[in-house]
Amino acid sequence: MSVPAQLGESKAEPVKASLQPLLDLVKSDLDDTNQIIIERMHSEVELIPTLARHLIAAGGKRLRPVLTLGAAKLCGYDGERAKKLAACVEFIHTATLLHDDVVDESDLRRGNETANVLWGNQASVLVGDFLFSRSFQLMVEDGSLDVLRVLSNASAVIAEGEVLQLMNVGNVDLTEDTYFRVIAAKTAALFAAACQVGALVADRESSEISALETYGNDLGIAFQLIDDALDYSAEQQSLGKAVGDDFREGKMTLPILLAYQRGDEEECKFWKRVVEQEQHDGDLEKALELITKHKTLESTFSYARKYGASAKAALDVFEDSEAKSALISAVDFAIERAY
Amino acid sequence: MSVPAQLGESKAEPVKASLQPLLDLVKSDLDDTNQIIIERMHSEVELIPTLARHLIAAGGKRLRPVLTLGAAKLCGYDGERAKKLAACVEFIHTATLLHDDVVDESDLRRGNETANVLWGNQASVLVGDFLFSRSFQLMVEDGSLDVLRVLSNASAVIAEGEVLQLMNVGNVDLTEDTYFRVIAAKTAALFAAACQVGALVADRESSEISALETYGNDLGIAFQLIDDALDYSAEQQSLGKAVGDDFREGKMTLPILLAYQRGDEEECKFWKRVVEQEQHDGDLEKALELITKHKTLESTFSYARKYGASAKAALDVFEDSEAKSALISAVDFAIERAY
Repeated sequence: MSVPAQLGESKAEPVKASLQPLLDLVKSDLDDTNQIIIERMHSEVELIPTLARHLIAAGGKRLRPVLTLGAAKLCGYDGERAKKLAACVEFIHTATLLHDDVVDESDLRRGNETANVLWGNQASVLVGDFLFSRSFQLMVEDGSLDVLRVLSNASAVIAEGEVLQLMNVGNVDLTEDTYFRVIAAKTAALFAAACQVGALVADRESSEISALETYGNDLGIAFQLIDDALDYSAEQQSLGKAVGDDFREGKMTLPILLAYQRGDEEECKFWKRVVEQEQHDGDLEKALELITKHKTLESTFSYARKYGASAKAALDVFEDSEAKSALISAVDFAIERAY
Repeated sequence: MSVPAQLGESKAEPVKASLQPLLDLVKSDLDDTNQIIIERMHSEVELIPTLARHLIAAGGKRLRPVLTLGAAKLCGYDGERAKKLAACVEFIHTATLLHDDVVDESDLRRGNETANVLWGNQASVLVGDFLFSRSFQLMVEDGSLDVLRVLSNASAVIAEGEVLQLMNVGNVDLTEDTYFRVIAAKTAALFAAACQVGALVADRESSEISALETYGNDLGIAFQLIDDALDYSAEQQSLGKAVGDDFREGKMTLPILLAYQRGDEEECKFWKRVVEQEQHDGDLEKALELITKHKTLESTFSYARKYGASAKAALDVFEDSEAKSALISAVDFAIERAY
């Protein structure tokens, strides 16, 4: 994971950012993937499909499996394997969400009550384990050791990223470098793997596999940066998530990491107290004030645009196509949903 | 999973039961496996090896990897692959222990404080995820899709068994059949897989792979039956575990399941209250009294001996050897540790 050396001032492009072109491109494949997801999350132990359905069938953008399907299309692949492997990617993502709910003590996700609020930590952990195992069963059915390698590596890296994040909850001195390590691992690794899998099923050469890895990685980092910014922005409420979740958990994300770096002595004392010790009424409002004062959301967006540009550039090795345009448009969507 | 049709009265054999012959047989391989475990649980994220070491390096019998190594020896295999795959089996087991600690709210395991008491639920979940992923990475390095199939299937079955158990906490009407489904899944599946892997690396024919699957499965069921009996026996304290853990959690295991079946009306009311509603001082003592009255530990041991006999019989397809004797002796050990 490399952080852009310089934080340039990029101008927002006048592109109509949308995920729609990519969704249109893979629509029929995605329907099949959804069918596979529903069929293969089945278990005779009823609580498993019940709880899995709560997260999986409730919808969500299916961004990661869509990337697998889109990357496969970009590589000219038009067979069945990508659909099943896209389901694998979604199962891994869902397992991490279920385990993350235990981790984050979050109360809302996609506007629903989280699984662990409804069924308890224990069920969330175990159903996550089931989906994770099921994902590997599907990969074994597919039979590609390369795919198994990419997704087992990603899974290990995700867990490492989550632990690294956990270790730094309440650490106001988290460095920018460690912050980027965390988001590269906990988020970008699965985006990168999802895209690589698309190239692997198409049996493309290593330069293209590696280009899609970079595309996915940089898109994933941009995506997480925007997520972290949204946690301090008004847009957040429209996503059904409370503003300030990260703040209340003492999680150092870029918007407050930069505010701490740019703050005067008194402001630093404030951040130290709210992150490391205790929070009172009015602290979130004060935090939002300092974030505005130091323009740290703007800086976060600026980083996101940098990574977004790098994601797009990675696709240069591919010839122009509908799939390529759709993947580029997905980058704009990931970033511009913030506005 | 099939339950023996009849519960015969088996006589305890005058065998000196010990795991020692098996441990002696695989000693040098096990040293290498331990080395692989220590090397491969490493991560730059320090909390991961710290927490993993707490469970893994603290010792324990390494029963499951020892079975992989022993089964490989039985099949005449003498190469390197079994060692790495034995480490995979131990990683999966450790991951389930870490996740089980979240599940069971247990306070003691092997006499130490559990990882989740020391580091919190969140760390236990995530380090479990890491070890689980690492296990699949090692299998991919090994490169056998057959091994990947056996262990990913086992992992899914384990999760199903744990969820089924969770759903039946506090259910006094749990049937014997469901109880056996739970222990076959949560415990015996990994024993069976561990043994199968030993035959797979040796490239043995399917009748032998299947014999070792049966051996592992039946040994695993016997092992869990004894575990469940020990939770109500004096021997338990010598293992550093409190007596009555299962009781306090409202977990229906065979000793109380049978006591409920055999109880009169008043006794059934007692079981219904303590399992489904609430417990008071003196309830555990009363439970132990009823267990003694209805000889349900004896019945549990009797079942365990049945499964043990079946495990041994499964090895009939193999010619006599030191490895075969050692594996038979391990069955006796699993059962006679209760006395």
